[in-house]
Amino acid sequence: MNLDFSSDNASGAATEVLLALGDANAGTAHSYGDDDWTKKLEAAFAELFEREVTVLPVFTGTAANSLALASVTPPWGAILCHADSHINTDECGAPEQFSGGAKLMPVQGAGAKITPATLDDALNTIINRGVHSVQPAALSLTQASEFGTVYTLKELAALGAMARRRSLRLHVDGARFANAVASLDCTPAEATWKVGVDLLSFGGTKNGALGAEAVICFDKSLARELEFRRKRAGQLASKMRFVSAQLLALLSNGLWLKLARKSNGHAKKLSDGLTALGFPPAFPTDANEVFTFLPEKLVESLHKAGAHFYPWTGVPENGRLLCRFVTSFATRDEDVDGLIALVRRDPTGTYAAGAETAPAAGPR
Amino acid sequence: MNLDFSSDNASGAATEVLLALGDANAGTAHSYGDDDWTKKLEAAFAELFEREVTVLPVFTGTAANSLALASVTPPWGAILCHADSHINTDECGAPEQFSGGAKLMPVQGAGAKITPATLDDALNTIINRGVHSVQPAALSLTQASEFGTVYTLKELAALGAMARRRSLRLHVDGARFANAVASLDCTPAEATWKVGVDLLSFGGTKNGALGAEAVICFDKSLARELEFRRKRAGQLASKMRFVSAQLLALLSNGLWLKLARKSNGHAKKLSDGLTALGFPPAFPTDANEVFTFLPEKLVESLHKAGAHFYPWTGVPENGRLLCRFVTSFATRDEDVDGLIALVRRDPTGTYAAGAETAPAAGPR
Amino acid sequence: MNLDFSSDNASGAATEVLLALGDANAGTAHSYGDDDWTKKLEAAFAELFEREVTVLPVFTGTAANSLALASVTPPWGAILCHADSHINTDECGAPEQFSGGAKLMPVQGAGAKITPATLDDALNTIINRGVHSVQPAALSLTQASEFGTVYTLKELAALGAMARRRSLRLHVDGARFANAVASLDCTPAEATWKVGVDLLSFGGTKNGALGAEAVICFDKSLARELEFRRKRAGQLASKMRFVSAQLLALLSNGLWLKLARKSNGHAKKLSDGLTALGFPPAFPTDANEVFTFLPEKLVESLHKAGAHFYPWTGVPENGRLLCRFVTSFATRDEDVDGLIALVRRDPTGTYAAGAETAPAAGPR
Amino acid sequence: MNLDFSSDNASGAATEVLLALGDANAGTAHSYGDDDWTKKLEAAFAELFEREVTVLPVFTGTAANSLALASVTPPWGAILCHADSHINTDECGAPEQFSGGAKLMPVQGAGAKITPATLDDALNTIINRGVHSVQPAALSLTQASEFGTVYTLKELAALGAMARRRSLRLHVDGARFANAVASLDCTPAEATWKVGVDLLSFGGTKNGALGAEAVICFDKSLARELEFRRKRAGQLASKMRFVSAQLLALLSNGLWLKLARKSNGHAKKLSDGLTALGFPPAFPTDANEVFTFLPEKLVESLHKAGAHFYPWTGVPENGRLLCRFVTSFATRDEDVDGLIALVRRDPTGTYAAGAETAPAAGPR
Repeated sequence: MNLDFSSDNASGAATEVLLALGDANAGTAHSYGDDDWTKKLEAAFAELFEREVTVLPVFTGTAANSLALASVTPPWGAILCHADSHINTDECGAPEQFSGGAKLMPVQGAGAKITPATLDDALNTIINRGVHSVQPAALSLTQASEFGTVYTLKELAALGAMARRRSLRLHVDGARFANAVASLDCTPAEATWKVGVDLLSFGGTKNGALGAEAVICFDKSLARELEFRRKRAGQLASKMRFVSAQLLALLSNGLWLKLARKSNGHAKKLSDGLTALGFPPAFPTDANEVFTFLPEKLVESLHKAGAHFYPWTGVPENGRLLCRFVTSFATRDEDVDGLIALVRRDPTGTYAAGAETAPAAGPR
Repeated sequence: MNLDFSSDNASGAATEVLLALGDANAGTAHSYGDDDWTKKLEAAFAELFEREVTVLPVFTGTAANSLALASVTPPWGAILCHADSHINTDECGAPEQFSGGAKLMPVQGAGAKITPATLDDALNTIINRGVHSVQPAALSLTQASEFGTVYTLKELAALGAMARRRSLRLHVDGARFANAVASLDCTPAEATWKVGVDLLSFGGTKNGALGAEAVICFDKSLARELEFRRKRAGQLASKMRFVSAQLLALLSNGLWLKLARKSNGHAKKLSDGLTALGFPPAFPTDANEVFTFLPEKLVESLHKAGAHFYPWTGVPENGRLLCRFVTSFATRDEDVDGLIALVRRDPTGTYAAGAETAPAAGPR
Repeated sequence: MNLDFSSDNASGAATEVLLALGDANAGTAHSYGDDDWTKKLEAAFAELFEREVTVLPVFTGTAANSLALASVTPPWGAILCHADSHINTDECGAPEQFSGGAKLMPVQGAGAKITPATLDDALNTIINRGVHSVQPAALSLTQASEFGTVYTLKELAALGAMARRRSLRLHVDGARFANAVASLDCTPAEATWKVGVDLLSFGGTKNGALGAEAVICFDKSLARELEFRRKRAGQLASKMRFVSAQLLALLSNGLWLKLARKSNGHAKKLSDGLTALGFPPAFPTDANEVFTFLPEKLVESLHKAGAHFYPWTGVPENGRLLCRFVTSFATRDEDVDGLIALVRRDPTGTYAAGAETAPAAGPR
Repeated sequence: MNLDFSSDNASGAATEVLLALGDANAGTAHSYGDDDWTKKLEAAFAELFEREVTVLPVFTGTAANSLALASVTPPWGAILCHADSHINTDECGAPEQFSGGAKLMPVQGAGAKITPATLDDALNTIINRGVHSVQPAALSLTQASEFGTVYTLKELAALGAMARRRSLRLHVDGARFANAVASLDCTPAEATWKVGVDLLSFGGTKNGALGAEAVICFDKSLARELEFRRKRAGQLASKMRFVSAQLLALLSNGLWLKLARKSNGHAKKLSDGLTALGFPPAFPTDANEVFTFLPEKLVESLHKAGAHFYPWTGVPENGRLLCRFVTSFATRDEDVDGLIALVRRDPTGTYAAGAETAPAAGPR
């Protein structure tokens, strides 16, 4: 039993992905992406998205997001994003670095989701004094969101339409894109370019890869610039085949969706279990993250019992901490059962909790 | 009669400053600041601040602010500043550009003034996840503030103490520092290094210069870096004597304070006059700016009558627009009287207002 | 008698320019360039160049050059420029800063002039490995050059043609553009857009202004971006009228050319005088700079006698130092005569030279 | 038989490294480097270097070099490096990007090696005009060099001493550090901190890893800043264990040196074989690269026969092309024999060569 619900980054790699690395290790291959695996990957993504796309494999989500945004935002541009989005709070200013100093403009919204209304509010708050003001250039949505919610296709369409009206390029941070698509039960095309998405950060690492993401570029005119930006950022793998092979394994036979469905299923089960014990989710459990408020003592007790998860902020509200539990493709039924059993045993944490204090917020 | 209350940037230069340019035009002089005027200026600032200081004359307030902040904020640092501060809303991302992509963190506060409580709130909102988060590095206060209010010495002391406790370097955007000192009736030292200010953007342009500001550096250890940054930013004047001479003229015989007092006096008179007519200031009229809510029709009527001023946002609240009137050293009594008379004549704007619409928000 | 030949930056301002500042000081004016002087300036430049142009007044040549180059060079671009050009050796990396890290590629050439052959050499030296290499994006010529030589129209045409063939945007650093045009006796149009120049840094400061330069943009498509870049760089003057008025005074009645011709004439006279004494110029004296090799002792002797000028490097060759003498509009006949007389009196410096050492190379 | 001598990046991964990935895939682990593999890696490097070191695993050599250099060079700094170094010619300006616009100053030297004399020349060429000039801040050596040569310990000591005298921080680009240490038969300590190296880019990818490099930091004071820079550059792996495990496998039981010795041995054998056929190496074959001049027709003939390697520039000298052959840990004796046999069969390429043209220079 493994009670580690700290992050989907805590899991290892899917067996199929590991095996693919072995397969990719045959003989020599051209470096820097001029190899068969990368060519196949581009074809696989084209099939997945039902159209031609430019694919730039990179190593991290931070890089994918920052490269994508830099290609559509001038240094004097503003990127509209949710106040709680990863690019705004957890990337140490990487989008600013890659773009040459663009400004992130936080947008509000329940469950870490932007709405046309909150986007409109944010845009209206920016008093555009022409040359004196940074210029709104891009909208970045996180799908699934930082709080485990998922934009519906209708919500995406509305935001896409608004982005077009406001001349904002549309980027999706899809570190958990697989979980979102699995949740929506739609085609990848429906969740992206069909609603106006220009650029997608396609996440592999949280969903079974060792370290592989890709910028999927639906606007060919951005491709060449992105290639220079990637090299210049130290994100062009010399032995690219080993990055591409990971993603290719995920795309093969729909593995990426299978893993995401499994992961989402565990989260649903955990969410239901906690709800039954009096701890309903703070946000809809659309994907593979469960947020719920737990008594401080229970948090303490669970940590003592070996469960690993993070309070979101470390600051209690009415004696309760907002806690995040993340499931992954590697989570097993018994892990979820085990956690629920621990909560059931002592739902207030009164008996078990001792002197140890809860850990502060950890990396996401 | 000149009814232009649009900005203190709309005024020309003080006669003494213009004459100083003529005086500085005698013979040849070493370039790039190795001249007598610049040496005298450093001495004059040392006397003014009652201690040794490094003085870097530059051309604009944007440059002064951005250079100062870049010298105390790494690219992965955060600068705490008021949400309505000039650096956050009106410099097109210059602080981000000069610092290599640092992040501005908006802080709230009535009258565009930060308080220890709102600063604390902002710092607590930033969940510091170590390497994943930008690191709070500097606090920037605007004195006088964007809304014409002035931090008291006690307020400054409290914020200075908090900055030290939180390891934040303290910068003051003093585009209207003269107006603030005139308002506080304190020594420049009391309003700066004695309360912990590390760097001051000393404004000259709004107060009678043609185009001259200075970074005043109270921490000698920052001086060398600032010199390279200034050159690299294209802010090192080859004929520096003409920049230094402007500032020197302002410092001579207390001209800078005389001009600021005059300017503040006009604002006070205007504020009182408008209050008597039913339009009290939205914020205390501490310096040379008067903000008040006026009926849309009155705004229209005043504009038609030739008055020049900007509604702050262009978005009315209950049929009224928040309007800003700025006085300067060049404002005359008759100008203020004239404006008040216009308002008195038709305080609702009903009779005079016609079809023309109010201008949108202009540059500050 | 003023024996200061250190730099044209050492001179003051032309009387007409100073008087224009006084004239511009009448009443209030819109800030940030929305004023009459700036409008007239744009018209004056359009007339001067016989076509529509976008004019962006800025404060320094470093800023003009760096803004212009940043607008035509992506961060992964290369700027071809002479190895001895100001942007390469004397701007502390400002072009790199403004462009977000572009690379300057030094090109050789006698007299600090690039030739089609040396440009070709430089381009061939760059092994373009696609995404692994920075991409040649712009060619920057200095006119008049760092060594006081001037590109002929034929030379310009050849380089312009080559730039087009190689898809390089063409920039001219015209800190001494007036001296070049005076020397060529051509129209400004012939020396710029007619040979393919996209952007010109038009220098005012070295030619009688206090501190005023302008980016002249012949390609309208670059204008909007340049405006944001200028603001963000802290180069947008709030009281712009005082910058524009300086340039306007220079353009009025051909003053800029009158001053440059005067300056060039002094240099010619000095060059001839030194040649007659056995010190011929190291490079053709096309504009307002004279470079010649002088015995170390003579340099010492001249400095002792009060002459001010810089050895170019401080490193003697065969006991001689390459020395630079710069004349300006403010140089008088007696100054040139005085210097020649000093050299004539003791052409080896043997009698007068004492213990004092020559100054090292100074700012240019 | 595999005649691919195009690059050591063309090889796959060492079996031990692949297996280590499988081992690292057990259970969950803390993300972002707070895992056992990364802790063991730091210990392993400390043992290897016989002292405490800070280790920052990253994905690419470009990132390792650029992060290391950015931590010791301010934006207005200059990095002295060989004109043919990878950072200068093959990283698309990444060091400029990461450092915020620092300037690379090319240094000459035979065999892509800098000498104290050429370094001195380069430093003297930079006329340091104080604030007008970028400031020499770091010296970057490539070990083994871009031309397959290796600095001796004596050469390193001399350069290290000069760096200290000139206040330059010392960086080593060790993409092929293993090959250099294997060649020198010294301890890693002797080749680095004992001669004054501050930062080492330790290469894993070319020597059997899939994609793993590390910045080895001998100066603890740089560590904290490097961590922020790494995150901000998108180089902090969430599942770091998979990067660390690769490097750990290389360090285990001296695998890294075993692989490098094998690789070097193949190069030596190839170099000797080609010499015997009349094609001596252009530079000493110290490591795993052989450079030699081959007749154009022979190059053509070899390519037709299936050999894969790159002419260095594509520009022939006297009918001959400088060609690079790179061996790796995966090269087999039969591969080298096969290539030599091909050359022996038709040493002028006259009989076999046809119409196909030689490929232009490829990625390094």
